[in-house]
Amino acid sequence: MAVAATYSDNQSRNPSIQALVDLVSSGMGDVNDLILSKAGSNVELIPEIAKHLISSGGKRLRPMLTLACADMFGYEGKGHVTLAASVEFMHTATLLHDDVVDESDMRRGKLAARKLWGNQAAVLVGDYLLGQAFKMMVDVGSLEALRILSSASAIIAEGEVLQLGAAKNIGTTETDYLRVIEAKTAALFAAAAEVGPVIAGQSDAMKAAARTYGMELGYAFQLVDDALDYGGSSADLGKDIGDDFREGKITLPVVLAVARGTDEDRAFWKRCLEGDDIADGDLEQAIELLKKYEALSETVERARDYGAKAMKALETLPTGPHNDALADAVAFCISRVS
Amino acid sequence: MAVAATYSDNQSRNPSIQALVDLVSSGMGDVNDLILSKAGSNVELIPEIAKHLISSGGKRLRPMLTLACADMFGYEGKGHVTLAASVEFMHTATLLHDDVVDESDMRRGKLAARKLWGNQAAVLVGDYLLGQAFKMMVDVGSLEALRILSSASAIIAEGEVLQLGAAKNIGTTETDYLRVIEAKTAALFAAAAEVGPVIAGQSDAMKAAARTYGMELGYAFQLVDDALDYGGSSADLGKDIGDDFREGKITLPVVLAVARGTDEDRAFWKRCLEGDDIADGDLEQAIELLKKYEALSETVERARDYGAKAMKALETLPTGPHNDALADAVAFCISRVS
Repeated sequence: MAVAATYSDNQSRNPSIQALVDLVSSGMGDVNDLILSKAGSNVELIPEIAKHLISSGGKRLRPMLTLACADMFGYEGKGHVTLAASVEFMHTATLLHDDVVDESDMRRGKLAARKLWGNQAAVLVGDYLLGQAFKMMVDVGSLEALRILSSASAIIAEGEVLQLGAAKNIGTTETDYLRVIEAKTAALFAAAAEVGPVIAGQSDAMKAAARTYGMELGYAFQLVDDALDYGGSSADLGKDIGDDFREGKITLPVVLAVARGTDEDRAFWKRCLEGDDIADGDLEQAIELLKKYEALSETVERARDYGAKAMKALETLPTGPHNDALADAVAFCISRVS
Repeated sequence: MAVAATYSDNQSRNPSIQALVDLVSSGMGDVNDLILSKAGSNVELIPEIAKHLISSGGKRLRPMLTLACADMFGYEGKGHVTLAASVEFMHTATLLHDDVVDESDMRRGKLAARKLWGNQAAVLVGDYLLGQAFKMMVDVGSLEALRILSSASAIIAEGEVLQLGAAKNIGTTETDYLRVIEAKTAALFAAAAEVGPVIAGQSDAMKAAARTYGMELGYAFQLVDDALDYGGSSADLGKDIGDDFREGKITLPVVLAVARGTDEDRAFWKRCLEGDDIADGDLEQAIELLKKYEALSETVERARDYGAKAMKALETLPTGPHNDALADAVAFCISRVS
């Protein structure tokens, strides 16, 4: 069995997703073309909203996983491009519906689609993109890839409903929370990676390894995002922080801080996150508490643990530039926060 | 080629869907069991909302079409049951999202799910049911059925976005309106019927005939619904009328009345439907105008025309009890209004 770069080897490299971006750049060009053509519709509002989202600068990590996990086996067809575009459509549909559910005003530093075009259009264009995603998957013709991605679709929605129950509830446990992020984030990363070896006709062992890589990377990615929303472990007060706090979202840093806090701390979290009663200075106090109880640094530590499991899964997959680039992607995800 | 009962033959029969209900009752028992099992989830809110919808007394016309259009070819597998349940899930997901988009308070005489559990849950449970629908279709393993149903899914959402543009716009033309109802209603009826011969391994001619039957029936069904919302051609003031009017929905009766009305009439429609400014007595005045310009009776006449086309399509399909029951279903749909 091939042995890939280990996590500690990788830590000495400069963490970047540039190697991944470069390796899949030709395929991603095709993915982008396909996305633009499939986001088209005679109904004007659809391409308008789709282009707003598509141009809003996501990293496109999920479709890159699909391409890399097919390319690493020397796959020479075009099915991975179509599956990658489907994955991105599924993700975009989720973002549109999330913004409606969370009543978000901003998305990646831009006004959220629901603020520009209304909740109604955001719900319906999300539905359209999901329908197009399934049509594209059907075009590829792999029932196995369809099974994996349609399962992910149901699991993502289930996770969002679960999160709705956890939202504004400071009694959320770590187990509850991990269930939420497995469903809402890790499941799509896992599916995006798994369909690579599926379309390349690989063994169950390869599919399982790619799936595990994606799943663990997804956990790490989400935990890093959670920490970043409070400024990361260094708690830098950047300009894009505090969204989760303002929306009453219970993330791992909060779960840890609540569990370790005093009754007075708990009353503070309850007022802010359950009671929607947030005053000037509360975000700063929240960050103070997170630092005091080492909740941010521990969240990042958990992310590192998941990252290490993702690296371990890469040991099963073929060595070579794709494997190296996928290892870099893990290190990059974690480096965002530290 | 077999010649089925013609529309005029059928008019002499007592219009009822009982024959259809009886013919597919065993299959519908299986569909209901599958729906209940697939609407299950460890996330409590999901089965709660799903059961609310499922028990709220829809006629389940769409899944019955799927069963009948497979059974009429002597299909003996179970794939049609799974496809029928998928069709009903797609429909239910659409209803949940529609209620959010339309800001509806009621659905089939009960409080809408969004009023009971909130818009957020309605959006997400809709997404979950759609994901489950695709998973079920994948279980069946027919790429052709998947293609038909995923296309319908995208078309339905496209139609809803189109309707959003037409809503509160009394300049909506008849052509615009027919495009909307083809997408939002007729497309799923067409797909529900077409997957019957598909799963039964029938010829393209049979698939096309079933599709046409479903499509034309869907048009008729929607136009009858539109007329019923203003009390039908007899304009009986039942208790469940006026929802479209209050929501500013532009339906065919309104399109016809606006086109034929005076400037003063147009100002009335504009105030009520575009301006959301509805006072006591306005619904009664709207119905007066619809009667004056024969807009309701003409809408019903159009529904009859579509019904006749559905009957014509049945001539291509095998004769027998299923064909007769599908003919009765057309007559029944239209009889609801006359």
